[in-house]
Amino acid sequence: MDPSLVPDPALQVALDLMGVATFAVSGGLMAVRKGFDVVGILVLAFLTSLGGGLVRDLVIGEVPPAAFADTSYLLVPIAAAAVVFVAHGPLSRLRRGALLFDAIGLGLFAVSGTLKALEFGLGPLQASFMGSLTAVGGGLLRDVVARETPVLLRADATMYSVPTFVGAGVVAVTVTSDLYSSAIGIGVVVGVVAWRLAALRFGWHAPTALRLRRRTS
Amino acid sequence: MDPSLVPDPALQVALDLMGVATFAVSGGLMAVRKGFDVVGILVLAFLTSLGGGLVRDLVIGEVPPAAFADTSYLLVPIAAAAVVFVAHGPLSRLRRGALLFDAIGLGLFAVSGTLKALEFGLGPLQASFMGSLTAVGGGLLRDVVARETPVLLRADATMYSVPTFVGAGVVAVTVTSDLYSSAIGIGVVVGVVAWRLAALRFGWHAPTALRLRRRTS
Amino acid sequence: MDPSLVPDPALQVALDLMGVATFAVSGGLMAVRKGFDVVGILVLAFLTSLGGGLVRDLVIGEVPPAAFADTSYLLVPIAAAAVVFVAHGPLSRLRRGALLFDAIGLGLFAVSGTLKALEFGLGPLQASFMGSLTAVGGGLLRDVVARETPVLLRADATMYSVPTFVGAGVVAVTVTSDLYSSAIGIGVVVGVVAWRLAALRFGWHAPTALRLRRRTS
Repeated sequence: MDPSLVPDPALQVALDLMGVATFAVSGGLMAVRKGFDVVGILVLAFLTSLGGGLVRDLVIGEVPPAAFADTSYLLVPIAAAAVVFVAHGPLSRLRRGALLFDAIGLGLFAVSGTLKALEFGLGPLQASFMGSLTAVGGGLLRDVVARETPVLLRADATMYSVPTFVGAGVVAVTVTSDLYSSAIGIGVVVGVVAWRLAALRFGWHAPTALRLRRRTS
Repeated sequence: MDPSLVPDPALQVALDLMGVATFAVSGGLMAVRKGFDVVGILVLAFLTSLGGGLVRDLVIGEVPPAAFADTSYLLVPIAAAAVVFVAHGPLSRLRRGALLFDAIGLGLFAVSGTLKALEFGLGPLQASFMGSLTAVGGGLLRDVVARETPVLLRADATMYSVPTFVGAGVVAVTVTSDLYSSAIGIGVVVGVVAWRLAALRFGWHAPTALRLRRRTS
Repeated sequence: MDPSLVPDPALQVALDLMGVATFAVSGGLMAVRKGFDVVGILVLAFLTSLGGGLVRDLVIGEVPPAAFADTSYLLVPIAAAAVVFVAHGPLSRLRRGALLFDAIGLGLFAVSGTLKALEFGLGPLQASFMGSLTAVGGGLLRDVVARETPVLLRADATMYSVPTFVGAGVVAVTVTSDLYSSAIGIGVVVGVVAWRLAALRFGWHAPTALRLRRRTS
């Protein structure tokens, strides 16, 4: 995949930094809910917002990773953590707010991560996985470090990674068939966020290995 | 270490992909046991089967790692997860089945991981560690993400990493002294699996810091 | 940043290996406290002492990482684990001993990690983060794998990462303004250790998002 195939590098960086900001808020809000101190807020903001992209950059061979090459990637989560620290709002809205910011981050990173992986020469299937990993990796690290059952795995959780992977796949397929445009990128972000929020609102689930679950209960 | 010192690269890839398949089944079965949905089965299958090799490839400098360069490495765990999803069998056999697949994966990855680390120029001690890390790393990630006490650490668990490290050491020493052959590689796989299954069957343990444990109990 | 700006490479390696030794003891002591076997002692000693530096080396692009290039980095934690295994001392001193070794490791890695990141061309802010990550990353991995709430995050814990980050920042600023000397490096190690031990002794805390915490309690 040629870098020139990605039509708007500025948009890609903008999507990426917006994803960093929303995931940083999501991580910071979890730290507040768990009663962690200012360091915990910063650490979870960094892990959630930069963890997925860091793994992506190590895998595709961008060294040093964007998180340590461009100062914006450190300043954005610091600012987000500061906002969370002073203005985390009433307790009752925290869970909902974290879920909203998380959904937006999922959509943004699914697009920016897939585009970046394609630029570095990964195939479309690999790039879809890498975009999904960028999107869900930070949240997975956040949950593991904060000792929560990863939202990615919970059978009682609504769909989380399915919209992400489908969105990443749309980006990969349209880029490799020369149909991609910035409008499609923005459309995928909106689609992933809408799908995720609808799944939360209406309680959509991914299927489980049903026969087994019936026997155990 | 020269690549030509490893006599059968095709066998090495075959061992590696067989290890991916067995660890993917092992990870998928844990997801079923814990009641995770289809995404959880896929995520644990990927983490368990590709996590150790991914860390190995990042450390030895193969970029992108095999898991994202060769499509087989993504398709094998997808197929394994599908098999687990539809045919995970009666509940009572799950724990035993997961342990058997885990043991086979340990043996396969101990050999393939050590050979690959030697190819990339690591010394024999380093390559033995890297082969062991390939073998136990995926299971460690699986246990951490699924919030199980890592089988690697449990004092009440039977020997898990000792056979792996000894097997990796045999490979490293025979390769560096020009005695390695495919027969030795296959022999090490069989030896590690047999040792691990015997440890499970007869309850062999690794020693603990005994005096301390007595005082605490 | 030019490598020649770091005035004493031998001191840097010495600080790094001393950090490896102290963190390996800290990790091994946690394994003993949790009743893990000899493999668990080794695994936690390796993770705690080499984990932070391994992530740093992958991010800055040193491949293979020091932990797998220089045999000392494997032999030191093996020796430390052996010392812990035979001489972990009376149970009552374990928690205090682990905290002391942890504090010394924090100071040593804050300096050596920051210096190494500067050598590989990271900016001063990035290098301060990387030095802090080197220092706290291994302990974070240790806590996650041993299923402890990370000391890095606990609101009831005394200050842990603040002295580390300030120390790393002093190193980064003095190196980039050509004021750095070995005496400053050693002074920062002593300062970080003293600050951390004083925080433990006098119960200093980092601030939490206070209004929220009051409502939840």
